[in-house]
Amino acid sequence: MKASILAVGDELLGTDRLDTNSLALTEVLRRRGVELVSKAVVGDDVALIAESLEGLREQADVLLVTGGLGPTRDDLTREGVARLLGRSVAVDEALWDQIEQGFQKLGRRIPRVNRKQAARVEGAEMLPNRAGVAPGQRIEDAEPMPRGTTYFLFPGVPREMNALIADALDPWLAARAEDGAGFDQIEVRVACLPESVVEERIAPVYERFGDENLSVLARPGEIRLRLRASGPVADRGPLLSRMVEAVRDALGESVFYAGPVEGGIEFEAAVGDLLTARGETVAVAESCTGGQLGQRLTATAGSSAYFVGGLLVYSNRLKMRLLGVPREILVEHGAVSEPTALAMAAGARQRCGSDYGIGITGVAGPGGGSESRPVGTVHIAVAGPADSRSHFEARFPGDRARVRQLSTQFALEMLRRMLLSGVGPADTLPWAAPSRMGPP
Amino acid sequence: MKASILAVGDELLGTDRLDTNSLALTEVLRRRGVELVSKAVVGDDVALIAESLEGLREQADVLLVTGGLGPTRDDLTREGVARLLGRSVAVDEALWDQIEQGFQKLGRRIPRVNRKQAARVEGAEMLPNRAGVAPGQRIEDAEPMPRGTTYFLFPGVPREMNALIADALDPWLAARAEDGAGFDQIEVRVACLPESVVEERIAPVYERFGDENLSVLARPGEIRLRLRASGPVADRGPLLSRMVEAVRDALGESVFYAGPVEGGIEFEAAVGDLLTARGETVAVAESCTGGQLGQRLTATAGSSAYFVGGLLVYSNRLKMRLLGVPREILVEHGAVSEPTALAMAAGARQRCGSDYGIGITGVAGPGGGSESRPVGTVHIAVAGPADSRSHFEARFPGDRARVRQLSTQFALEMLRRMLLSGVGPADTLPWAAPSRMGPP
Repeated sequence: MKASILAVGDELLGTDRLDTNSLALTEVLRRRGVELVSKAVVGDDVALIAESLEGLREQADVLLVTGGLGPTRDDLTREGVARLLGRSVAVDEALWDQIEQGFQKLGRRIPRVNRKQAARVEGAEMLPNRAGVAPGQRIEDAEPMPRGTTYFLFPGVPREMNALIADALDPWLAARAEDGAGFDQIEVRVACLPESVVEERIAPVYERFGDENLSVLARPGEIRLRLRASGPVADRGPLLSRMVEAVRDALGESVFYAGPVEGGIEFEAAVGDLLTARGETVAVAESCTGGQLGQRLTATAGSSAYFVGGLLVYSNRLKMRLLGVPREILVEHGAVSEPTALAMAAGARQRCGSDYGIGITGVAGPGGGSESRPVGTVHIAVAGPADSRSHFEARFPGDRARVRQLSTQFALEMLRRMLLSGVGPADTLPWAAPSRMGPP
Repeated sequence: MKASILAVGDELLGTDRLDTNSLALTEVLRRRGVELVSKAVVGDDVALIAESLEGLREQADVLLVTGGLGPTRDDLTREGVARLLGRSVAVDEALWDQIEQGFQKLGRRIPRVNRKQAARVEGAEMLPNRAGVAPGQRIEDAEPMPRGTTYFLFPGVPREMNALIADALDPWLAARAEDGAGFDQIEVRVACLPESVVEERIAPVYERFGDENLSVLARPGEIRLRLRASGPVADRGPLLSRMVEAVRDALGESVFYAGPVEGGIEFEAAVGDLLTARGETVAVAESCTGGQLGQRLTATAGSSAYFVGGLLVYSNRLKMRLLGVPREILVEHGAVSEPTALAMAAGARQRCGSDYGIGITGVAGPGGGSESRPVGTVHIAVAGPADSRSHFEARFPGDRARVRQLSTQFALEMLRRMLLSGVGPADTLPWAAPSRMGPP
C-alpha cells in the first residue's frame, strides 16, 4: 500500500509556516508499513486541490488530505475532492442537528455559517471528531482503475487531526496491514569523515544489504546513516544487528552512535558520556572559536561532571597572561601554529586543573588569512595525562561559521580518539594523512 | 507568473525533517511578485520525480527543484527531469576538470564518484555554485504548449541553495517581474521585549498602515517585524520610511536594526558594531552558558576589534582561581547570586584588561534547581568604566538550551543599553520592574 499526503491552506505557502501535520501522519504510515511516496501543499483553491489530488492518485492508493474543512469561505477541500470525483457536496441535515444540539448542551449557539462543517462529499463515510466540530471523511473511489483510491479528509487543527488518526486512520490501516509490512530503522552516526570517504567505505554494505536499505544524511562534520530492515518482524532485529556490524567494520572507531533514530545522542554528548564513564575532566583554550567548544561541551545536562572551565584568548597578550603560552613561541611560530596550539592545550589543562586540555587557534576568516596561513587554517591540540598529546592542522573549507563549527567538531573527535585509545598520537586519526584536509 | 516548488529526498519524507528550503524560495518569489501555487516533496526515485514534475508543470510555469544533485547513487534529480523531458544526462567534462582543479588547489583529492556532480541535463544552462561543488541547472522546455516551463535545479544544502537564489534565481525573476508586481519589505528587529509588549505598543502602527502590511515573527528573545509596501515602485521607499519611523516611535531604543530583510544584522553583531564605533572592548565570565556569550560575540568577522577574551568558570574553584571571586561571597550568597555575578563581571574586566566585563551565573537545568533558585534563575551583571555596573535577575522559561540562549541574549542587551546610555543602572532596562520576568 502506498500513501501520499496533501496539506491544504494558503497559510502553508507563506514564508513562516510549514506543514507539520504530515509528520504525525508519516509516523503512523511507517508503523503500519505503508510507504509514503510524496507529500504536497496547495492553496485554498478548488481547481488546484482537484488537480493536485489527480496527480497524487497516480502515485498512491491512499490520499491523506489535511485542512480546509472549516466553516469559512476559503475552506474548500470538500469542493476540491468533489470536483475531481464528479460528485456533489451537500449539508448532512442529521449531522447538522447533532452539531447544533451539542452546542446547545454547552449553552452556546453555533452560527449558521458553520453549516458548511456538516457538508458531506457524496458517498463519504463521516468520521466522528471527538476533539472538534468538523468530522473527518473517508471516500472510496474507483479511479484509477483497477485499484481505486481511498481519500481521508482531516481537519488541519493538529489536535483534531491527531484524534482522527487514532480513531479512524490507524484502525483502518491496521486492518489492512500486510503481514510483515513496514520496517524498522537504526541510525549510525559518524563524525569528521567526508561524505565521499564514507560512501567509498560502505560500498560493500550497499552491495550486501541493498541500496534502498541505506541512506546517507550529511551535515557539516557529521554523517548519519539510516539502516532499514523490512520483511518478517522477527527477522528485523537480527538483520539490523548484522547491518550495524557491517557498518562498524567499514567505519571503525569513527562511529559514535548506533541506535534508534528518535532520541539519538548528539556528538558532544557522546564525548561527554565517555568522559563521565572514565571519571575524567576537560578544559578548553579557544581562540578563533571564541567559546563554541565550551558551549558545546556544556550543552548537555550533567556536563559539570566533566567540564571544569576554560579560557577564551583572542589576543596574544591573553594567550600569554591567562594560559602561559611563552612569548618566544608566539614570536617564533606565530599565534596560528602547532606549538601555540599545544601550549594552549597544556595551559588549559594546567590552569583549570583538568585531566585533558584542548587548544584551538586558527584563521576563521573572512579576513586575517595569509599565503602560508590561508583562511580555514586551524591548529587543534589535545593534551592529556602522562604527557599524551595530539595535534592536527586543518584547512577547512567554507565561511567563518563553517570553519568554527568544523574546528570544534574536529577538536571533540580528537579528544574522543584520545579517550578511546588511551594515548593519542595524531596518526591514529583517519584524516592524519594528508595533514591538510577538510571534510565535505 | 506562477511557480511551484519540488523538494527531492527520502529524508524529507521521514518523521523528523521537513523541507525548510522552500521558505527561502517562497521569500524571493513573493518579493518578485510571483505566485507560489503549490509545493511538494518526493523521495529519491526517478519515476516519482518525473511524475511529480509532470503534475506540477500543469499548475505553474516555473518549477523550483531542490535536492538530489549530490554525488551519491540516490541523488536522482537530474535523471528524473531528463526522463520527463525525454532528454539525456551526461558528465560535462570541462566542468569536471574545473571541479578537480579546484580541489587540487586546496591540496585535496576529489573521489571519482563525485563525477556525477558534473552531470548536466541535455540543454541545461549550468548555474555556478560559489558555496559548493555541484552547480545548479536551468532548463527551458516547450511543454506544456504553448507557454512552456522553466526548471531550476538547486542543491539541497541550504547554504548552497541560498547562494544560487541570490546569484541565479533572483536576477532571473527580477528581469521578468511585471511592473508594480510584488512588494518591498523592511525588517525591524527588537531584542528582549516580550511579543505581547511589542504587539501592544505597535497597535497604532497596524491601524495606520493596515494589518496586512505588518507581520510579527517571534523567536526566543527577539522579535522581527516585517513592514511591507506594495503599489507603484516609486512610492514604496517613502512609505517604508514612514512605517519604520512609526515603529521606532513605538519601540524606542529596543530597536537594534531597521533595514533590508536579507543581510540584516544579527543582534550580537549590532552590539559589536556599537563597541567598534566607540573603540571599546569587552570580556566575558561565563558559568551556566559555558562559552555561548563568547561564541556569539566572536561570530562576526572583525570581532577581535572589541572582544579580548574570557573565562569559563563552571566550578566554584575556578570562579575564585581564575576570576578572583571572593570565597566569602560564594559562601554567603551562593554561586547563583547578584554579588557573584557582579564579582565575575568585574573579574573578567580586570583579568582580561577590557573596558567592559560581563558575568553570567545561573541554573540552566534540568537539574540543579532549588526552591529559592528554581531552574531558569540567572544572574547577569555588566561592569564598565568609572564603576558603572548593572545587574539583572531573570527567571527564564523553557529548557536548558532556551535558558542559555536567553541568558546570553539579555547579557548582550544589558551591555548594549550601557553603551547607549553611557552609564548603566539596571533601571534603564525595560524589564527592570519586576526584576523577575522572562520574555515570551
